Amino acid sequence: MCEKQAHSFLPEYSQWGHSFSHLSEVDEERIYMDYNATTPMDSEVAEAVTVAIREAWANPSSSYLPGVKARDIINQARESVSRMVGGKPEDIIFTSGGTEANNLVLHTAVKHFWQSRETEEREGLNSSQQNGRAILPHLVISNVEHDSIRLTAEHLQKEGRAGVTSVAVSKVTGRVEVEDVVAAIRPTTCLVSVMTANNETGIIMPIKEICQRVRAVNKQRPLPRILVHTDAAQAIGKIRVDACDMGVDYLTIVGHKFYGPRVGALYVNGPGTTSPLYPIFFGGGQERNFRPGTENTQMIAGLGKAAELVNTHLSEYETHLSDIRCYLEERLLAAFGADKIRFNSHFPGSDNLPNTCNVSILGPRLVGRRVLATCRRLLASVGAACHSGQVDRPSRILLSCGVPYDAASNALRLSVGRSTSREDVDIVVEDLKETTEVLERMN
Amino acid sequence: MCEKQAHSFLPEYSQWGHSFSHLSEVDEERIYMDYNATTPMDSEVAEAVTVAIREAWANPSSSYLPGVKARDIINQARESVSRMVGGKPEDIIFTSGGTEANNLVLHTAVKHFWQSRETEEREGLNSSQQNGRAILPHLVISNVEHDSIRLTAEHLQKEGRAGVTSVAVSKVTGRVEVEDVVAAIRPTTCLVSVMTANNETGIIMPIKEICQRVRAVNKQRPLPRILVHTDAAQAIGKIRVDACDMGVDYLTIVGHKFYGPRVGALYVNGPGTTSPLYPIFFGGGQERNFRPGTENTQMIAGLGKAAELVNTHLSEYETHLSDIRCYLEERLLAAFGADKIRFNSHFPGSDNLPNTCNVSILGPRLVGRRVLATCRRLLASVGAACHSGQVDRPSRILLSCGVPYDAASNALRLSVGRSTSREDVDIVVEDLKETTEVLERMN
Repeated sequence: MCEKQAHSFLPEYSQWGHSFSHLSEVDEERIYMDYNATTPMDSEVAEAVTVAIREAWANPSSSYLPGVKARDIINQARESVSRMVGGKPEDIIFTSGGTEANNLVLHTAVKHFWQSRETEEREGLNSSQQNGRAILPHLVISNVEHDSIRLTAEHLQKEGRAGVTSVAVSKVTGRVEVEDVVAAIRPTTCLVSVMTANNETGIIMPIKEICQRVRAVNKQRPLPRILVHTDAAQAIGKIRVDACDMGVDYLTIVGHKFYGPRVGALYVNGPGTTSPLYPIFFGGGQERNFRPGTENTQMIAGLGKAAELVNTHLSEYETHLSDIRCYLEERLLAAFGADKIRFNSHFPGSDNLPNTCNVSILGPRLVGRRVLATCRRLLASVGAACHSGQVDRPSRILLSCGVPYDAASNALRLSVGRSTSREDVDIVVEDLKETTEVLERMN
Repeated sequence: MCEKQAHSFLPEYSQWGHSFSHLSEVDEERIYMDYNATTPMDSEVAEAVTVAIREAWANPSSSYLPGVKARDIINQARESVSRMVGGKPEDIIFTSGGTEANNLVLHTAVKHFWQSRETEEREGLNSSQQNGRAILPHLVISNVEHDSIRLTAEHLQKEGRAGVTSVAVSKVTGRVEVEDVVAAIRPTTCLVSVMTANNETGIIMPIKEICQRVRAVNKQRPLPRILVHTDAAQAIGKIRVDACDMGVDYLTIVGHKFYGPRVGALYVNGPGTTSPLYPIFFGGGQERNFRPGTENTQMIAGLGKAAELVNTHLSEYETHLSDIRCYLEERLLAAFGADKIRFNSHFPGSDNLPNTCNVSILGPRLVGRRVLATCRRLLASVGAACHSGQVDRPSRILLSCGVPYDAASNALRLSVGRSTSREDVDIVVEDLKETTEVLERMN
């Protein structure tokens, strides 16, 4: 294990230095606190991938022994991944990543709606007539979902293929409230999709309660059955995630958020039986036709190993992350004082991910991007990596959670990892202290 | 380079022996001749992947230096891949594989049709009125396409979203004939999709001529412009593939068919400008929104390296493959005699891939699957790996090409690779000779 080494960007700087010569002043090791953006592969995961590259390259559809072996590796990974989220192996559909998994759920929800209509019509139960109005499937999401949910829903809406209600999170709790979700349900609602934990605030959403309420609604109404999805990209590997216990139909799994590779999976509670699943792609029949395409055996092997690590070590990870995050918050408070620090991830009565500290250092010159660009040691972000191009606009997510505009502008999302140490925290806080002093002295 | 080693399955048998103890009689090194099913990663590709796992794990959307570096690696790969197929870097959209790329093209074609209708309606040019009949986009494919084209087209047809004409290949030439493609075009045709070379026969299709004729048709008719796609999965790395020279709008690239990783790309001639491209997925904006989702940097780095190898060594590869394939055919003829051998990949006037030998050893007891199951040394298949579960039905592709039923039942698809040697061929032919003698003695 050279995990510490793997998380340092210094060796790469020297190896790739020629491309970054204008940045040659970067001569100190950077400290990565952007584990919510992505994680390195754990060394055991990297080893699993490398071994599979060497040994399991046969086509998993081939009937000879090496093909069978590749299939076995995939199914072993399926077993580990399913165990990680409290499902059965057959509930796991491997995908290219979270974006695909999330798109697959929304695509399925729309098809499910129309299939339910057909069933109703066949059985003469057409109770959801809307008196001449065009009937559309209706989706309920929260207003802090990842873009692979939000923009997919918006696209369906724009194309006239779905209606969408985006339920605002509470500005008091930072959570989407169960009552608000239930209030958004219409007779045509076919899906509720709420993330397990937010990527910027780390706030954990009440998925289990949402499922309970939706189940009660389903019992008292005709078709379509409302399906429930949760995007667990940020939660897995940080807190216990149990799809069965939550009661969801679908759960999104993203390898690179828990020290795995850049592939993902969708948990489906009984794909095609208990919960519907309609493929987006058609092809060679892989993944029981739910997701055809020659399997990325090597990356899937890595995903399995990453899941295995979570299965074995989750409570250690959680304890460590929580300890380091607490220490980070203490040090920030000590260094800057309570008047100058605002924790954007603290909401009364809400739990959040043990590794996420969304903090603003208050002051007119301390806009988040500027602080990060000036830091000598810290590598972090102001929000989701996908939006890193959107200069100088405070995070939509934080504003939605009721963080005041000025504080949101100064926000830093510090997300710690399995190998982040108290020493790293000390260095980062010192770095932030020096940086803010420099920026405040400037005119 | 230990390529030879990499292609041997023997070391894996010993390492994974405990899982395959019932097959412990497999004590000789197997010789892989199924390179059309998949290839191992070239050792340089594996190295590129491994280095990227260690060094380029930052999120390519992150604005700090390691993020920039990951982006640079992706763009370097984009450059190599584009050069390999005669395009510009901006023409390359990375995908999870060939199935996704092919599905993306068909999805785009349907959207393109409706966009063209809107344009026409706006400009009062509605010339393709069909007198009250429901108007549907029409797709022209060949009847030997990969399932990721064929089944996607069939699905669109079944859902009432497209009409499909499947043009039969000539039973004389094994090719789809240009005149037959042109004859299939209707006023509503929006896409012609024909593979560059067939995966079972290796027959090379007249894509350049198809493009020329389609261009002429496009000049003389109103919208929709007919787009041309070719799935070059099997051709790349074996023969020169130049999208620009062919004149296609889209070309599918599949890493694991040319010693690259299990990801792919779609070449698009000016995505969104010259040739339309409508995304299937929505999300974080990656790949200029054409294919969002955090990039699989490591696998993309490997794809770039695999392309680089093709760019540098294609003519060597081609010469070697062709030499070995010729030698294989000679040895087969010498061992079995011309009366007992039928080359299903020989069609008068047609070229085929230099590495593909589709052969039947004639005789009532020599059904392909049985022969392969009995061989001690040879690893090969009877057709596309995706269909390896379909026991005892001769290949649909071969029957379509006019191969008689009995011969098709006995077909072996032998596809050689960069490291296959004449010695390997000698061993395989000897193995086949012994196997057929054993099978013919059985009653």
